[in-house]
Amino acid sequence: MGARWAAALLGLAMVAGMSMVSAKVVEYEWEVSYINAAPDCYSKTILGINGIYPGPTIRASQNDTVRVTMKNHVATEGITMHWHGIRQIGSPWADGTAAVSQCPIVYGESFTYEFTVDRPGTYFYHGHFGCQRAAGFYGSLIVDLPDGMYEPYHYEGEHMIIVNDWWHRGIIDQEQGLESTTFKWVGEPQSLLLEGRGRYNCSKVPKYDPAAISCNQTDERCAPHVWKVERGKTYRLRLASVASLSTLNFKIEGHMMQVVEADGHNIEPFYTDNIDIYSGETYSVLVHCNGTLDNYHLGLNVRGRTDKDVPTGLGILNYNNATAYQPNTPWPKGPAWDDFPASKAQAKKYKALRNNPDPTSHAFNKTEHAVTRTIILLNTQNKYQGHTKWAINNVTYAPLQTPLLAALVYNISGAVDLTPPPDYPTSGYNIFNPPANPNTNVGSGVYQFNTGDVVELILQNAATLTANQSEVHPWHLHGHDFWIMGYGDGVYDPIKSPFTFELDNPPARNNVPLFPFGWTAIRFKLDNPGAWPFHCHVEWHFHMGMGVMFAHGIDQVRQKGIPSSTLGCGLTKTLFKLNP
Amino acid sequence: MGARWAAALLGLAMVAGMSMVSAKVVEYEWEVSYINAAPDCYSKTILGINGIYPGPTIRASQNDTVRVTMKNHVATEGITMHWHGIRQIGSPWADGTAAVSQCPIVYGESFTYEFTVDRPGTYFYHGHFGCQRAAGFYGSLIVDLPDGMYEPYHYEGEHMIIVNDWWHRGIIDQEQGLESTTFKWVGEPQSLLLEGRGRYNCSKVPKYDPAAISCNQTDERCAPHVWKVERGKTYRLRLASVASLSTLNFKIEGHMMQVVEADGHNIEPFYTDNIDIYSGETYSVLVHCNGTLDNYHLGLNVRGRTDKDVPTGLGILNYNNATAYQPNTPWPKGPAWDDFPASKAQAKKYKALRNNPDPTSHAFNKTEHAVTRTIILLNTQNKYQGHTKWAINNVTYAPLQTPLLAALVYNISGAVDLTPPPDYPTSGYNIFNPPANPNTNVGSGVYQFNTGDVVELILQNAATLTANQSEVHPWHLHGHDFWIMGYGDGVYDPIKSPFTFELDNPPARNNVPLFPFGWTAIRFKLDNPGAWPFHCHVEWHFHMGMGVMFAHGIDQVRQKGIPSSTLGCGLTKTLFKLNP
Repeated sequence: MGARWAAALLGLAMVAGMSMVSAKVVEYEWEVSYINAAPDCYSKTILGINGIYPGPTIRASQNDTVRVTMKNHVATEGITMHWHGIRQIGSPWADGTAAVSQCPIVYGESFTYEFTVDRPGTYFYHGHFGCQRAAGFYGSLIVDLPDGMYEPYHYEGEHMIIVNDWWHRGIIDQEQGLESTTFKWVGEPQSLLLEGRGRYNCSKVPKYDPAAISCNQTDERCAPHVWKVERGKTYRLRLASVASLSTLNFKIEGHMMQVVEADGHNIEPFYTDNIDIYSGETYSVLVHCNGTLDNYHLGLNVRGRTDKDVPTGLGILNYNNATAYQPNTPWPKGPAWDDFPASKAQAKKYKALRNNPDPTSHAFNKTEHAVTRTIILLNTQNKYQGHTKWAINNVTYAPLQTPLLAALVYNISGAVDLTPPPDYPTSGYNIFNPPANPNTNVGSGVYQFNTGDVVELILQNAATLTANQSEVHPWHLHGHDFWIMGYGDGVYDPIKSPFTFELDNPPARNNVPLFPFGWTAIRFKLDNPGAWPFHCHVEWHFHMGMGVMFAHGIDQVRQKGIPSSTLGCGLTKTLFKLNP
Repeated sequence: MGARWAAALLGLAMVAGMSMVSAKVVEYEWEVSYINAAPDCYSKTILGINGIYPGPTIRASQNDTVRVTMKNHVATEGITMHWHGIRQIGSPWADGTAAVSQCPIVYGESFTYEFTVDRPGTYFYHGHFGCQRAAGFYGSLIVDLPDGMYEPYHYEGEHMIIVNDWWHRGIIDQEQGLESTTFKWVGEPQSLLLEGRGRYNCSKVPKYDPAAISCNQTDERCAPHVWKVERGKTYRLRLASVASLSTLNFKIEGHMMQVVEADGHNIEPFYTDNIDIYSGETYSVLVHCNGTLDNYHLGLNVRGRTDKDVPTGLGILNYNNATAYQPNTPWPKGPAWDDFPASKAQAKKYKALRNNPDPTSHAFNKTEHAVTRTIILLNTQNKYQGHTKWAINNVTYAPLQTPLLAALVYNISGAVDLTPPPDYPTSGYNIFNPPANPNTNVGSGVYQFNTGDVVELILQNAATLTANQSEVHPWHLHGHDFWIMGYGDGVYDPIKSPFTFELDNPPARNNVPLFPFGWTAIRFKLDNPGAWPFHCHVEWHFHMGMGVMFAHGIDQVRQKGIPSSTLGCGLTKTLFKLNP
């Protein structure tokens, strides 16, 4: 049953072999199991890869094939892995999203992801089934330029800094609270982590059962991460946020940052002393290390939600191998958590790098990228059969039992309701008040496009079920990048708002924030056949239904076939005949 | 692919229809999800069925077909359900054991169990994947005699009492601790539960995060269960232990019990004021309600392990609808936890009911049941690659990736190592000391038999890795009952020990305890083709490898086929051809 796919793979390899002689295959073997960890000194069971957390860093060069074989040792659970920011051109089945691109890898089984990393840049990977990302199931993925090619900026060393927010309760408890009709919110995080390390004040943990819970501030697993630099040199810091909820602000004591890369795309460089990072985003910043002291704080703070009980996450920038210690100086802190004007101003600073030497970057052209379809997605908080949900155009997303890609490719009867959700919200919806009727519909939200379509998509924010409240939603698109055309406050006006768009030099991204009571406009070209989620990257929000599915070019995928190893669950079973 | 099976089912139904006109189909539709519960006042996320815990009681009559369709709503996890004590005659695929009888039911999917309940009695069901039983995934299963047929004892009312031990930590934490090379034992339980209710002293829970953990002694979910009786009447109390670890002793304040049924078999009745219940066992006791007060304690205590921090579990026997309250009298308490002579004396009291009117009960006959093969299974605690394990004849059981039944029926190459483990332990093993070499081997431990074999099986206990320590192991056999031939202290002597056997009237059971530093002898006839686990019913011990697999009559199973709905994982995938 694997023959068709093997042949397709071989064909790909031949094409690749002809056009890119330097491309290689980078292989990883991963064993996934629960491990005990204490990222913020509080001991907890989390998902580890090869026994470590965060997972191993994947490092490859542009056009390489990455091949990751992942064996599941997690008793009772299935797993998948999403390669965030990798478009999976020609390999939509390898996107690692449960209910969309594949059946979960069940206990005891192995699955091999194989895909091309077509664009250099900073990426990461994370679990994409249930809320497993929040259980620590993630790591970094870095794509270098091929030998002999150089970035349009210079640096002498580099470091990875993956940032996150962290809770002490396990995801099973958290998910149950979110799913229950007696809704229980996860609350704000206990800690903020840099490269998987934070520091919780253990005196706040009561002595309950020492055998069950330990919190130990001398545990070396929560010693702050130390990033070593040499005085006088310039470093590229690669930042990636896997946060489950929080927008994070990163700041280095006494150092300016020059932002040069966002979501794998070079941008017009700009200087800042603090950078907002929304969940799902990656950045590279250049830091010229001209400090006079031995150690400086790296600081991470919450933005966009209250930081009342969330202390600054800390790391150490350490010069010239001096003894590393946490300075006594005040913790670095960016703008106040509720300084939304500062966030919006920074968001608007991002422009595509003019004359970008990277031919794979997504240059925008007003003519080529003329809009063929406009969709407005209203983001609301609702109720469905007593459960609290997030909905898009009054449909809350429920994962399909049959992976969407297979359902479409094999046209499996009954697997998916192909009636598309509406392109627009109900006319006259008052975004400023909680919904008059809080009830929403449930569905799988599949928007079907034609390959080549250029979609203009407006994310429209609204009040939650709580009066005077609207939240930040960091949206992430799979399989494609988009251009960020603009942000605005209040209701999007189809006549007036487009006049405010950045038509000259919009940045290409795969993540974008939607601000409270505001709108965000993006455009993208449907040029990578497959089935692709577009969702709020807040783990808890997506679990509560905040996403839609996009599909196009299914005929092309069908011609090539999808590996049978991605099938076997839901109605994909009907594709198989027992033939022992 | 379902056609072959459907035909086989139809055939069965026709045979059943001809011979037993009164048999009916009893159907249940279950939705499985995580729920919040507070069995002992401490709030926790557990597995619920149709939103409740313990799960719904299944009630059917002898020879009925029970059909349970179970839908899995548990994000990321697979599930299975085992019908404990039901032999699954002719339906080995419906035994509900992951890695043996079926592939787990993955998230979003449904599976239908269908089996005949051939013998009246008291049974229960529980999850049999990972340690999900310990997450509250269980309920009662009662099989009545057909209309017009009567038990060989009389009662005027009946009640179910499912008993359990309970922990506050979640199973994911517990399993990780057991699996880790830095082994962390689960410890003794926090509470003992009667019919899913106990009472933890909430003052022992610190105020940590009220949103995360609550413990509230006025929570009605942990109000003691009240069993209502009328003065002057005799009640049948049906007891079943789903304990994860503890042997439990049940006692009713001021009332004697007459024990009449054990594991679905009528026994020679005997009176006692307290009854030991090992994990996996079921009993019926008759209680003549001649008390003069309104309320009496039902009490549950730990036996065989320290009860230092495990308070008595309590229920209320309430007369004539008086106001129910917990009496002020001392809590009922049986023998001291370490009074092993009392336990052994009680275990030896069980004899099969002479002239049992139940034709389905497993009468023992010295001639017919002459032993054709003897196996001695040495129970040891060991190490495997740094992990703490339990091993049988120096093989620790590791669940197969491919369900054993399917692997054998379809003779799937590479799915299972068919080399049987040894029939005897290493000669001269010193059971009184920790193993000289603590390292063990790993395997799936499949003993293959011929249908019709009568196996004499000796369970031999030994010291753990801790000097002077040996533990109680309640062993449970799937698919068959066995006769308990005898118990002894020290090393089983193949020459002398059989002279102590009960050859006259041994009780038929499917559960039997193995006492510290002792041996237990059982016999059983291989008369139900399939693949069947035999394992220590301590959830934590089986998870640590304390079990073996038995298989016989695979040709017969093959002729009938097994439903394709049980396949799809591991190497069963190779049985299918993609044919969209």
